[in-house]
Amino acid sequence: MTDNIVEKQLFTSFKAVERLLLGPGPTTIHPRVLQALSQPTLGHLDPDVIRMMDEIKAMLRIAFDTKNEHTFLVSAPGSIGMECSFVNLVEAGDKVVICTNGYFGDRMKQVAERAGAEVIAVTSKWGKPIDPQDLEAALKNHVDTKIVGFVSSETSTGVRNDTKALCAVAKANGCLTIVDAVTTLGAIEFHVDDWQVDVAYSCSQKGLGSVPGLSPITFSEAAIDKIKRRTKPVSSWFLDINNVWPYWGSFEKRAYHHTAPVNSFYAVHESLVMLMEEGMEVSWSRHTENHRYFAMKMQEIGMEFFVAEAYRLPQLNTVVLKAGMDDAALRKRLLLEFGIEVGAGLGAGFGKLWRIGLMGYGSNKENIDRLMKALGEVL
Amino acid sequence: MTDNIVEKQLFTSFKAVERLLLGPGPTTIHPRVLQALSQPTLGHLDPDVIRMMDEIKAMLRIAFDTKNEHTFLVSAPGSIGMECSFVNLVEAGDKVVICTNGYFGDRMKQVAERAGAEVIAVTSKWGKPIDPQDLEAALKNHVDTKIVGFVSSETSTGVRNDTKALCAVAKANGCLTIVDAVTTLGAIEFHVDDWQVDVAYSCSQKGLGSVPGLSPITFSEAAIDKIKRRTKPVSSWFLDINNVWPYWGSFEKRAYHHTAPVNSFYAVHESLVMLMEEGMEVSWSRHTENHRYFAMKMQEIGMEFFVAEAYRLPQLNTVVLKAGMDDAALRKRLLLEFGIEVGAGLGAGFGKLWRIGLMGYGSNKENIDRLMKALGEVL
Repeated sequence: MTDNIVEKQLFTSFKAVERLLLGPGPTTIHPRVLQALSQPTLGHLDPDVIRMMDEIKAMLRIAFDTKNEHTFLVSAPGSIGMECSFVNLVEAGDKVVICTNGYFGDRMKQVAERAGAEVIAVTSKWGKPIDPQDLEAALKNHVDTKIVGFVSSETSTGVRNDTKALCAVAKANGCLTIVDAVTTLGAIEFHVDDWQVDVAYSCSQKGLGSVPGLSPITFSEAAIDKIKRRTKPVSSWFLDINNVWPYWGSFEKRAYHHTAPVNSFYAVHESLVMLMEEGMEVSWSRHTENHRYFAMKMQEIGMEFFVAEAYRLPQLNTVVLKAGMDDAALRKRLLLEFGIEVGAGLGAGFGKLWRIGLMGYGSNKENIDRLMKALGEVL
Repeated sequence: MTDNIVEKQLFTSFKAVERLLLGPGPTTIHPRVLQALSQPTLGHLDPDVIRMMDEIKAMLRIAFDTKNEHTFLVSAPGSIGMECSFVNLVEAGDKVVICTNGYFGDRMKQVAERAGAEVIAVTSKWGKPIDPQDLEAALKNHVDTKIVGFVSSETSTGVRNDTKALCAVAKANGCLTIVDAVTTLGAIEFHVDDWQVDVAYSCSQKGLGSVPGLSPITFSEAAIDKIKRRTKPVSSWFLDINNVWPYWGSFEKRAYHHTAPVNSFYAVHESLVMLMEEGMEVSWSRHTENHRYFAMKMQEIGMEFFVAEAYRLPQLNTVVLKAGMDDAALRKRLLLEFGIEVGAGLGAGFGKLWRIGLMGYGSNKENIDRLMKALGEVL
C-alpha cells in the first residue's frame, strides 16, 4: 500500500534500452524474432494460427528428437512446464526419486511433493553431476518407485547431468522419466526418444532464443498411459493434458481451452524456423565452440570455472569470483556502463559465482569479445 | 505421430495477416502496444524492469480501484488467474459456493473442486444473472461456507452479474469473495474495495487491449490472512503467492521466482498507460456508447440480443442467429472475405449465438460500421 499512486500522476510509456544479455536467460533476442512477435494479433482459433501451431509441433519434435504426438507449448514459463509434468504424472502417494544437485533440482523436489509424491532424493554436491550408481542404489532400495526426475542442465551450477545414463537406469528399474531440459533444448545434444525420456519440458528464452513466457513440452505414450489410468483428476484444471490437448491435438476440429498467447507463439515459431535453418547439430557445435573460445579468454585473465570440463555446460558458464571482486558492484558497472547483463549466482552460489550464458542467438564470438573488453576495464 | 515432418522440409516464417478481431478476445491490438511488445528483451531482474513493474502495480490498483498491496500480474493467461485465486485460498474440505450461469462459472466450479473445495452451486439459466437471494438462501443452508466465487462478466452469455450485490451477501455471511473480472476490467465499472471483492483476476487481451497471455490479479488483506493461516502448502509451487510475491513485492531487494515474460509486461504496461490517459470512467462510457450504437444497428437489420438490456454486457454482445443463418459458413466468410473475426457461441450457445466483442481499442464506431457493412453483404 506504500506505492499506490494517485490517478493524476502521469504514467508514461516504458522505453527499453538495448542490453547484451549474457545471464542465465533470457538471451538477447534476434531482430527476426522480435519482428515476428509484434505482428498483428490473431484469434487463438484462427485457421492460420492452427496451421502455425501444427508447424510449431513439427519443429518441436525435431528439436526434442522425438516422434511423441503430445508435443506442444504450455502457455506459461518453464517453471510451469515443470509443474505440468509432475501434476499430470504423479498421483497422491506415488514414490518419486528426484536427483538433485542444484537449485532447480531442489525446486523439482518441491514441485513433486506438492503434486502429492513421496519423494526420495538422490543428491550430489553442487558442481558435481549425479552419479547413475547412486540412482541405481536408490531404486534398489525403493523398488516401488514410479518416476525418476532430474534436471539435465542445472542452470544454478552449470553442470550437465548425464540424461542418457540416468534414464537408462530409471527405465531398467521400471520407472518413467521426467527430464528438465530448460537450459538444454537447442543448446546441447538431447534425444528424447533414443535416451528414453518420457516427459521433457523446456523454455522459450534460452537455447531457442525466443522471448520468455512459454514452455515446450513432450509426453511419451507411456507417460500418456499413466495419465489415462489416473483414478483422480489432475489437481490443475489448466495443466491437465486431457483438457489442453484438444486445443493442440491433430483433430479435425480444435476445441477452445484458453486464450492462447498467439504473439508469443509467433516468436517461438520464428526462433524454431531459425533453429531448423541452422540445424540442430550445427547449433550444438556452435555453442561448444563459443564456449571453448570463452574458456580460453577467461583463462587468459586468470578466471576459473566452477565445473570440471567433463561435465561443464557450454551454454551456461559458472565462473568463480576471485578474492576482492565485489559481486554486486561489478555486475552493476557491467550493466549500467557497458550495457551487459551477466547472471549472479543462485542459492548457494550467490556472491561466489557468476553465471555467464552463451545461448541461442547470444552464443557468438562478438558477444564474448565485447564482454572480455568490458571485463578488462572493470577488473 | 501423423504430422511429423522430416528435417529437410523447409519451414518458413509465419506471416500474420491483419484482421479485425470482434470476438470474445483477443481484441485488435493498438499499434502502440505492439510496438511496446517488440522492444528489446531485458532481464527479469533488470532495475529498469523492476521500476516498470512498480508502475504496472500502481496502474493495476487504479484499474481495479483498490489499495490492495498484493496486486500484480500472473505470468500466464486468465484461466491461470482463476486457478491462482482458488489454489491459494482454498484448503482441502473448505465449503465454497460457486454461482454459475455460464461456461466460465462452470469452469470455476471445476477449478474449485480440483483445489479441494466442497462446492455448492448456485445457478441461474444461461442468459439470466444470478439472483442475490439465491446466494443468500444457499449461505443460510450452508453456514460454514468460507468462500463465494462468481464470474462478473460471463463471456459465454454476455450477462453481467451484480458484483456489488453478490459480494454484499457473501460478506454479510462471513465469506471471502473471489470474482472473475476477465471480461470486466477496463470495460465496465468495477470497484474491488468498495464492492468488497477479496480476490479479483482478469486478463490482458480484453478491456485492457493488450496481447493475450497475462492475468492481472489482486488479493485483499483478508485473503492474504487466510493464505497465511493455511495448514498445508498450496498445491501449485508456481502459483503460491508466498513464492511469487517476493518477485513482485515492494522490497528493497527483489527475489528470483521465474523468468518473467518481460516483453508481455511491456505490452500490458503500455495498454495501462493508454487506459490511464483515457481515464477509467471515460473508457467505461465509451464501451457503453459503442454498445448502444451497435444495438441500434443490429435492430435495424432485425437481429436480436440474447440478453435483456438491464444486465447486458456492452463489451460482449451475444446476438441470436436467425433461422436459416449458417453459423460456421457465415463466420468463415466474414473472416476470409472481410477479415473480420466474430466469436462462435460457447458451450450451450454454440450454433445459436454469436459473441461480438467491442472491447478495449476494438470498441469504436468505425469497427461497428465495418462489421455492419460486411454483415449487409453476407446476410
